[in-house]
Amino acid sequence: MTIRVAVAGASGYAGGEILRLLCGHPRLRTGDLEIGALTAGGNAGSTLGSLHPHLLPLADRVLEDTTPEVLAGHDVVFLGLPHGTSGQIADALAPSTLIIDCGADHRLQNAQDWLDYYGSEHAGTWPYGLPELPGNRDRLRDASRIAVPGCYPTVSILALLPAIAAGLVEPHVTVVAVTGASGAGRTAKVDLLASEVIGSARAYGVGGVHRHTPEISQALSEAAGTPVTVSFTPVLAPMARGILATCTARTTASAAEVRAAYEKAYDDETFVHVLPEGTLPATGSVIGGNAVQLAVTVDERAQTMVAVGAIDNLTKGTGGAAVQSMNLALGWDETEGLSTVGVAP
Amino acid sequence: MTIRVAVAGASGYAGGEILRLLCGHPRLRTGDLEIGALTAGGNAGSTLGSLHPHLLPLADRVLEDTTPEVLAGHDVVFLGLPHGTSGQIADALAPSTLIIDCGADHRLQNAQDWLDYYGSEHAGTWPYGLPELPGNRDRLRDASRIAVPGCYPTVSILALLPAIAAGLVEPHVTVVAVTGASGAGRTAKVDLLASEVIGSARAYGVGGVHRHTPEISQALSEAAGTPVTVSFTPVLAPMARGILATCTARTTASAAEVRAAYEKAYDDETFVHVLPEGTLPATGSVIGGNAVQLAVTVDERAQTMVAVGAIDNLTKGTGGAAVQSMNLALGWDETEGLSTVGVAP
Amino acid sequence: MTIRVAVAGASGYAGGEILRLLCGHPRLRTGDLEIGALTAGGNAGSTLGSLHPHLLPLADRVLEDTTPEVLAGHDVVFLGLPHGTSGQIADALAPSTLIIDCGADHRLQNAQDWLDYYGSEHAGTWPYGLPELPGNRDRLRDASRIAVPGCYPTVSILALLPAIAAGLVEPHVTVVAVTGASGAGRTAKVDLLASEVIGSARAYGVGGVHRHTPEISQALSEAAGTPVTVSFTPVLAPMARGILATCTARTTASAAEVRAAYEKAYDDETFVHVLPEGTLPATGSVIGGNAVQLAVTVDERAQTMVAVGAIDNLTKGTGGAAVQSMNLALGWDETEGLSTVGVAP
Amino acid sequence: MTIRVAVAGASGYAGGEILRLLCGHPRLRTGDLEIGALTAGGNAGSTLGSLHPHLLPLADRVLEDTTPEVLAGHDVVFLGLPHGTSGQIADALAPSTLIIDCGADHRLQNAQDWLDYYGSEHAGTWPYGLPELPGNRDRLRDASRIAVPGCYPTVSILALLPAIAAGLVEPHVTVVAVTGASGAGRTAKVDLLASEVIGSARAYGVGGVHRHTPEISQALSEAAGTPVTVSFTPVLAPMARGILATCTARTTASAAEVRAAYEKAYDDETFVHVLPEGTLPATGSVIGGNAVQLAVTVDERAQTMVAVGAIDNLTKGTGGAAVQSMNLALGWDETEGLSTVGVAP
Repeated sequence: MTIRVAVAGASGYAGGEILRLLCGHPRLRTGDLEIGALTAGGNAGSTLGSLHPHLLPLADRVLEDTTPEVLAGHDVVFLGLPHGTSGQIADALAPSTLIIDCGADHRLQNAQDWLDYYGSEHAGTWPYGLPELPGNRDRLRDASRIAVPGCYPTVSILALLPAIAAGLVEPHVTVVAVTGASGAGRTAKVDLLASEVIGSARAYGVGGVHRHTPEISQALSEAAGTPVTVSFTPVLAPMARGILATCTARTTASAAEVRAAYEKAYDDETFVHVLPEGTLPATGSVIGGNAVQLAVTVDERAQTMVAVGAIDNLTKGTGGAAVQSMNLALGWDETEGLSTVGVAP
Repeated sequence: MTIRVAVAGASGYAGGEILRLLCGHPRLRTGDLEIGALTAGGNAGSTLGSLHPHLLPLADRVLEDTTPEVLAGHDVVFLGLPHGTSGQIADALAPSTLIIDCGADHRLQNAQDWLDYYGSEHAGTWPYGLPELPGNRDRLRDASRIAVPGCYPTVSILALLPAIAAGLVEPHVTVVAVTGASGAGRTAKVDLLASEVIGSARAYGVGGVHRHTPEISQALSEAAGTPVTVSFTPVLAPMARGILATCTARTTASAAEVRAAYEKAYDDETFVHVLPEGTLPATGSVIGGNAVQLAVTVDERAQTMVAVGAIDNLTKGTGGAAVQSMNLALGWDETEGLSTVGVAP
Repeated sequence: MTIRVAVAGASGYAGGEILRLLCGHPRLRTGDLEIGALTAGGNAGSTLGSLHPHLLPLADRVLEDTTPEVLAGHDVVFLGLPHGTSGQIADALAPSTLIIDCGADHRLQNAQDWLDYYGSEHAGTWPYGLPELPGNRDRLRDASRIAVPGCYPTVSILALLPAIAAGLVEPHVTVVAVTGASGAGRTAKVDLLASEVIGSARAYGVGGVHRHTPEISQALSEAAGTPVTVSFTPVLAPMARGILATCTARTTASAAEVRAAYEKAYDDETFVHVLPEGTLPATGSVIGGNAVQLAVTVDERAQTMVAVGAIDNLTKGTGGAAVQSMNLALGWDETEGLSTVGVAP
Repeated sequence: MTIRVAVAGASGYAGGEILRLLCGHPRLRTGDLEIGALTAGGNAGSTLGSLHPHLLPLADRVLEDTTPEVLAGHDVVFLGLPHGTSGQIADALAPSTLIIDCGADHRLQNAQDWLDYYGSEHAGTWPYGLPELPGNRDRLRDASRIAVPGCYPTVSILALLPAIAAGLVEPHVTVVAVTGASGAGRTAKVDLLASEVIGSARAYGVGGVHRHTPEISQALSEAAGTPVTVSFTPVLAPMARGILATCTARTTASAAEVRAAYEKAYDDETFVHVLPEGTLPATGSVIGGNAVQLAVTVDERAQTMVAVGAIDNLTKGTGGAAVQSMNLALGWDETEGLSTVGVAP
């Protein structure tokens, strides 16, 4: 049986990344996987080649409108759409269709959090596409609806989880995450122009207002079994891809204790790599790959654990997580079409 | 009387920045100021034009060796040298010579801190070239020896000072500071190659080991009247200049209280600018200028104050502070030759 | 008498650069110069601080609408507007007002060229704000209307002029010019997003269709006394500012002959600097300054002269040329408020 | 039979790229291919993880010294060594060993060219690893020694070949090629520091002195059947990877004629893609992939053909060409382990 896949929002960065990964998926070559409809909003009617010239094998594909009719008849539908739109699309598709939503709509469990941060009615909660969370892999194996985590939450949660879960740090964490510009999407805005971003670092969403904050808090609180507050500050740096998250929390544990907890937690994980002591993560090492690179230590003078994580926001942070989730839900090897090798330098 | 200025370490980034600012200093045009000897280590014998092609008016100047003999006979000597070398040079120059050291040797008050972080015997403490610290301006007016602050401490201290001094936050602060590559100096190292830095963000000196940590702690502790612990993590981003420091501390104060403290503290300061509410600092706005741009707010959910500061590490973070200090020590207007205007975009 | 200056299009990059230079103009401090109305289109009503946070001294200024009424009553009006609009504004202002147009409308002498490249009726020709062209300085001293050259023509013409004027090369030149993104202006477009520009070099306007082509040809043909054809290709590189133009033409002259012509041509020019042999221009050396750095040599195997020039597209390429032209037209020293020092690294 | 591969110079960028591609080669998974010795000079003894943290699957591999003894016993040896060293290594290995040299030593046919540009005795000529050259594929199928082309020649030759071979342009071409910094290798040099490269474009090797010049000329002359002179100027831009070559030559042909020649020439080539009219190449579209993207047109006013090509200098420009050549020489499908999909944005 051939699994037929559609990508809604194919002209954006999330859609483009999913397609990049699908182009290299081994099941495409064997015929188990087929790339069906590619849809867009304003870009419908254009060729994919004019929008994503890096996807040469699909260059002649023409984008269709994002409608339930076009998306129907596919086994898997990836959604790379603005938040607030995926619920409606999902309702119109068959319940058996595997829908993998890269938007935020179905990530939060608490309707009040959704209301506070997004200002609208909550669309419900779907299994969370972060297989590395304890117990999550099983949930994803049975799922026909999957909410891909936000890019910041992916790296922040994975960088803090072992310490939080083991109770090694106080349940208040600080995350300062440096991101490339692609995290802001492919919409024309003056403050995302190259001239504005190149040569400059700037914070945004300061003071706990970024929408990924409750998502980080939710996962960490669940792991801790107690509420974990999160001070989260995103910083835009002059690069296209990558997130480097510096995560701190007060601790009385030693560096060795903390390190042991991380190594144990991620020992069996293909995509999460705790670096050897003295080595620190760089986003440049994970570009285009699905790896999370982590380093953790304790500043004993300041009684503070410092965990630093690097991911590619578009791969492990979006498209890679989406493909990883698809693989799981289809019963395929979780790592198919995904690599721990980055493109560097 | 003409003040004759020498720059030791003129081939490096600190030396180049001091010279850039001196080229635009109004006292140069009036003849009150004269650029004398320019010295270097391995680059002695080269023209300045071959090393700093952006300093066209000085292009034909030839660098001399950094020796006390060459530096003697100047009224002001700027030192842009590796740490550990300025004490010796200073001892060999006349006590009346105004020596402004951009290196670390004379910044710390505590010999044990020096030993812990630099591993050698402490050379003594000089007045600290951060005029915006309470009481510091007077000390600098009488000084013939000045220690220019580190670039990270400058922005971190100024971003935290009002809250710490007013007791509005707990005496434990977290600083994650994103920097451009020029902060690492002009020494050929593989990990500072363009290919390694472009397209990548990476943390370094993680876990409280960066040498600027005790300098931040020292100034904040003095302002607080109680020890302030500092968790400091520097992050290298793909840009040449600029530091963006995200500083957090637990608080029960409101955003309005904190903001009022900052506005009061910096109301009379030319170079420290608290941005209007809703505006956030970007390093791109301060490149080439001596301004510090700050924003401060409180994340009430996380009971955390977030203060973000931006400087040009080479201007306000090094060469601008050096010139500002010189102006003060010579009895000139503190702002001469310095601008609050940046080069953007 | 105080010269009162208005800037129309103050929210764009050209307007911002003019204001940056005016903020440092010595006549502002002496009171000979005053910054009057700042106007914009869609950004009217905003503070300058929200649009150009690097211009701290003007942060509280509010932008007005771009109308003849607002601009009236100024001695100098700088226009940083889309082409096609300045003619109308100029007609509505007093003939004695010094109007300095950074747009393209009045640069070309040949109405057919205008029609071919811009597709509309020609608005007429104004004195060309490139004082370094032979005879041009005198024309600008008497002018009340000045057309600031395009950024590409400025560096391309200056890099080729001595060889063309002396007949040392064939009257067919090839220019490949690498530019930063600010040359494309401050309009939100997907293909100028940071994510699209960072990490990528791309050609545009290939095949002689770029609108600056006839402007280069016009100046070179006039200097040669014979038509000079120009193959011009612009390349967008991941930087905010700067143009590096590589200009070639067939020659039988020797490197020494060509070099001598350049040194003679620019010996008296403050802003045009022929680099010593073996040194090559970099845009990084001219950022924020008004300098043009040139190198020239002959490839004898290929019988080709190669002249390379670097400018800051916003300074010497736009705002600096505008201020230089203003200085001349007002009878001030041409170099006031302009520097040959760049901000580097 | 398992093909055992060694990489000499594994710590450099060429070596790293070859290993990145081998990690994704399908024959590695099937066991037909095995990664054997990895060697280095000064970095021998280090883990690959400390030098290429993006190559996670090989992180624990320890680099050995580059000696014939270590390299012996492999079926394929890739050489990523400074020029002048590969001849000696090759002589010491069995004649049946497939040696693929990424250095320059064996690319030129003319000993005088080698002497003129490299100043030493020529080591001899090996089959040239550019399968897209007419007749070259067959030569590579039988080869046990292969010289991988230089990065600039690869894109310049492919961008000019169809026009030159068909006699559509004059036999004098001008190439201005913008490159990322990785082309200069991984050696610590001040002028390759991030601070020097970011925010700046600069020409180097101006005047026909770059060593890739005779290589371009050689291939084009052979295709033309007459000597082709080449004016070649490389420009360093602030990016890590990628070359964009703008190639011009005088022509009386029409755009349609030229275009038809290109489409015909590359119709059957997997890795060379002539873009649809109106679309222009960007290096950002080919990063990490083995594709060459080309556009060609004619500027009729200037009677000049303009052909623009984009490649990833480390992939198609080095490591990808090396793997493509290996595939051919081993009788495998030429495209195995290579992709026409780039990592973008």
